[in-house]
Amino acid sequence: MVLPTSTRTPPEGSTRTRLLDAAVRLVRAKGLNATTVDDLCAAAGVSKGAFFHHFDSKERLAVAVADHWSQTTGAVFASAGYHDKADPLDRVLGYIDLRADLIRGTAAEFSCLAGTMTQEAFESSPAVRDACAASIFGHAATLEADLSAAIAANPPAVTVNAASLARHTQAVLQGAFILAKAADDPAVVLESIEHLRQYVQLLFSPAIHPPVPKAKKRP
Amino acid sequence: MVLPTSTRTPPEGSTRTRLLDAAVRLVRAKGLNATTVDDLCAAAGVSKGAFFHHFDSKERLAVAVADHWSQTTGAVFASAGYHDKADPLDRVLGYIDLRADLIRGTAAEFSCLAGTMTQEAFESSPAVRDACAASIFGHAATLEADLSAAIAANPPAVTVNAASLARHTQAVLQGAFILAKAADDPAVVLESIEHLRQYVQLLFSPAIHPPVPKAKKRP
Repeated sequence: MVLPTSTRTPPEGSTRTRLLDAAVRLVRAKGLNATTVDDLCAAAGVSKGAFFHHFDSKERLAVAVADHWSQTTGAVFASAGYHDKADPLDRVLGYIDLRADLIRGTAAEFSCLAGTMTQEAFESSPAVRDACAASIFGHAATLEADLSAAIAANPPAVTVNAASLARHTQAVLQGAFILAKAADDPAVVLESIEHLRQYVQLLFSPAIHPPVPKAKKRP
Repeated sequence: MVLPTSTRTPPEGSTRTRLLDAAVRLVRAKGLNATTVDDLCAAAGVSKGAFFHHFDSKERLAVAVADHWSQTTGAVFASAGYHDKADPLDRVLGYIDLRADLIRGTAAEFSCLAGTMTQEAFESSPAVRDACAASIFGHAATLEADLSAAIAANPPAVTVNAASLARHTQAVLQGAFILAKAADDPAVVLESIEHLRQYVQLLFSPAIHPPVPKAKKRP
């Protein structure tokens, strides 16, 4: 995920924002537990006193960084070009293509902060888990309207639930990030995104649900 | 993943095996970095001296536990009933159904040790990353022969590479585990496994690749 760079952060917010941006970088690279408050202060160039002025604990920082992640990445997707396509299926495929376009650099640069933190915090910190869930499932929900419209316009032969398919797109991405980390190779993400694209195309393929003349209902 | 319980561990191997089994439980529940040597010794009921007799460091333990995981889970899949089905596509679908059957209890019980460790160690420990990659991609490779046979028996209309599709099955599972951890709900895994099953079925659906009479080649 390529994040937009803040150019006009208000001065009073800059320490907090620097800490949040540092947390995004460090947690994606080495995980939440291995990232210490000292690491965060050093990377953000702030004192420990400044850290604890903004966050009572590393857990509070983790919750805040999940929200920060949702907002910054949410802005990227909200302003993306795929929303302008007329056909809802094209908008869904456009979203998938954008996810492929965003795979650049190393896994620490393109992987998901919320997925990484979930992995470590799901049993130890319900607050962090819930903030990660809000980020992942909130993002999935942004796909539901287009998927519902695509299903309504062109009902697949098999039963497809828009919310479930939206969550599945995120499962594919999260898992592909793990495989890319294991293989140390972003190509593994791209091939799973291609399988996801193919799945969506097959669901809506005319060949598997030829148009059937609708029987007129009698009153 | 439900692991078989060792009933006849040789006495000289028992300390090492107890440490490895404890590591599987603890790392799946809270991650590699949050699991200390003290935690491992307490959970295994062994002394710190015994730990360092078997493993030079926690990193060495992590590499060994990835191998242990590959062997114990590999044995479960190697002896599973899906291998007995005559049709290669049925064997692939049988594997997917087994993955769904194994989703029981909490995410700490059904999630993948190798995927969890990869998330934390991919930048900090190439040795752990490589051991996790060997586990994940080694398991994926066990599906390749059946996928290749299914493709040969019934070539899909779209290009499908057996090795790539095998890796994709693991991406779906790994990502579904993350979503289940975030949602604190195993149902999220089951729905993604169902999407994976549907994708495989659609790829091999007769409707999207009606049999075409082969043109005879002229010499």
